[in-house]
Amino acid sequence: MAFPLGAPTQSTVWYSFMMPKQHPRRRSRSIQIGSVAIGGGAAISVQSMTNTDTRDARATLAQIERCAQARCDLIRCAVPDMAAAEALKTICAESPLPVIADIHFDYTLALAAMEAGAHGLRLNPGNIGSRDRVRAVVSAARERRVPIRIGVNAGSIARPLARRVDAGDMALADAMVESALEHVRILEEMDYDQIKISLKASDVRTTIDAYRALADKTPWPFHVGVTEAGTTRAGTIKSAVALGILIEEGLVDTLRVSLTAPPEEEVVVGREILKSLDLIAGGHRFISCPTCGRTEIDMTPIAEAVERYLIQTDPPLTVAVMGCVVNGPGEARHADVGIAGGRGQGILYRKGKVIRKVPESELASALIREIESILAEGEETQ
Amino acid sequence: MAFPLGAPTQSTVWYSFMMPKQHPRRRSRSIQIGSVAIGGGAAISVQSMTNTDTRDARATLAQIERCAQARCDLIRCAVPDMAAAEALKTICAESPLPVIADIHFDYTLALAAMEAGAHGLRLNPGNIGSRDRVRAVVSAARERRVPIRIGVNAGSIARPLARRVDAGDMALADAMVESALEHVRILEEMDYDQIKISLKASDVRTTIDAYRALADKTPWPFHVGVTEAGTTRAGTIKSAVALGILIEEGLVDTLRVSLTAPPEEEVVVGREILKSLDLIAGGHRFISCPTCGRTEIDMTPIAEAVERYLIQTDPPLTVAVMGCVVNGPGEARHADVGIAGGRGQGILYRKGKVIRKVPESELASALIREIESILAEGEETQ
Repeated sequence: MAFPLGAPTQSTVWYSFMMPKQHPRRRSRSIQIGSVAIGGGAAISVQSMTNTDTRDARATLAQIERCAQARCDLIRCAVPDMAAAEALKTICAESPLPVIADIHFDYTLALAAMEAGAHGLRLNPGNIGSRDRVRAVVSAARERRVPIRIGVNAGSIARPLARRVDAGDMALADAMVESALEHVRILEEMDYDQIKISLKASDVRTTIDAYRALADKTPWPFHVGVTEAGTTRAGTIKSAVALGILIEEGLVDTLRVSLTAPPEEEVVVGREILKSLDLIAGGHRFISCPTCGRTEIDMTPIAEAVERYLIQTDPPLTVAVMGCVVNGPGEARHADVGIAGGRGQGILYRKGKVIRKVPESELASALIREIESILAEGEETQ
Repeated sequence: MAFPLGAPTQSTVWYSFMMPKQHPRRRSRSIQIGSVAIGGGAAISVQSMTNTDTRDARATLAQIERCAQARCDLIRCAVPDMAAAEALKTICAESPLPVIADIHFDYTLALAAMEAGAHGLRLNPGNIGSRDRVRAVVSAARERRVPIRIGVNAGSIARPLARRVDAGDMALADAMVESALEHVRILEEMDYDQIKISLKASDVRTTIDAYRALADKTPWPFHVGVTEAGTTRAGTIKSAVALGILIEEGLVDTLRVSLTAPPEEEVVVGREILKSLDLIAGGHRFISCPTCGRTEIDMTPIAEAVERYLIQTDPPLTVAVMGCVVNGPGEARHADVGIAGGRGQGILYRKGKVIRKVPESELASALIREIESILAEGEETQ
């Protein structure tokens, strides 16, 4: 066989490309926030943050409830003043999820938040003043087994480091790592062993570089996310790219997707990212084709109606919505149930076998009814 | 310093974690589709596929125009029959983008599509019948320098391979690779040297495994995407995760995002993925905060209005929309221009410096006017 232009044949490795492969998970230490284990091989957990006024305990709890329904694992609330710390009592008592208090600068708010029952803190010990203040926080945290997240953002690294970055002396990612390690050392010197670290930037490259650089410098678990990531579309893309790469490299212990959108939407995106990498067991798989010149029905509203149903009920089924009868059932033959469009109508099928024809306007509801009948059959046989 | 529980200090590498890093780009061969180079180190191009009836040349051209405006590089059209191939004459003559004809099974459609001026083909030579038919297609393609993409989908691998996968004898990804190489060999045996390969599955893990497995077995450039990826949200996430990982590993030469949504939306998502990894130079950077308990204005509609403007005009600026005055300008101090919310109002700032206060209802428009004034100033000084 003549290989064009002199390259070797397929039977040999034609050049020395270092084959990429999935990394093992980084072996981080395990910490515990309420009922949720983070690091040390525990399943990657999904977090979000309320954007209600924390002082309004009822509104905040309602939002936490919506996050819990979206299968959030941990929730964070800003604690900007004593009234918010006070409201945290009700919130922590009634929240279905462990609550993390987000504290900036004022150590008395950290003490009050723990007193109110917070299961975790986000607080940078280098920013709360004297060692005595840090010792007071660490002592209360140790007593209650409250982990502390050190959260370094690209925009808020310590001034001497920021100046070196601005002068072009130091990469931003390295400055973030150094800044985080400074805060970590303060807690380690007090023998504190419930620590978690985040290094967030608004751009994906800096985020990836920072976590990679920190990976072998510290044993503490990583909370990973892109901060100020943008609107739903842009933020979803940045988060999925950064988290996808860092999860594949074994560096993620817990994650937050940041969107300028309701927190429950962040949870849905975070879970979809984990699901795409087979890191959430069970639940639905949904496949729907992009449509092409062969498609003769309006697929998008049908696919979206089915997806809304699937996100809510999350049945353990693979469901397909395909545009054409020719390729539909074949391409989706591993689906448990699906529809394939034709002209003004479509077919409903199960396990690649046609059940019946359905008019276009009834396709979504026929598919949903079929899913419910499969679920009911499953219950009967159990 | 006592490190808790006996782990070594930060000054040493505490365990032998193999540090992940960015892979060099896979050295693929270069091919040319119309004006667009693919592989051999060329910039990663973004493709989409029309979902109009190809026989309707006007509707198809209007959709191609919308894709071009979204900065699509290449467009594909289904060619299911001779009327579609006929319409391709008008489409190819007037399209602002190189046109790829998508052919299944019928080699006469491939010949007609090339006759009509198609710049590329998507066709699996093993599926069009006798070697004489393949030779006829390759001969016409060689004459016109029309590259052929071999596109193997998880749902349509050759039957003997599919049976081995169903029997648990062979991984699906490996069967896809083997199936692709069978098609490739047919073209290589005819000394054809304008080949591109795609291996698409509807799940991210199979997609990643397949491209990795093919990486050192063939020199041809890779067209990468997740097929039947789902609705806008689910498909965006699956595509961003798979493409993010494969781009980072150097395996992507050209990409398509598949969504059950208009093709121009696929292009926007594809470009955002490349941009998130700094692979598209110039253009805007948009950062917007996720809001929290400190936010006192309704950020989401403001951020979305600003994003719509930025996607349309794509100015070479970093633009920030932040929820609170306290952290806003500081966190976004590298932004060229931005707004930060307060109670019922916000501030407009440039390069971290406050310009003026603006009522909440006018924040988006004030920011957009400021961007336009910066652009006008830039033009004046050029």
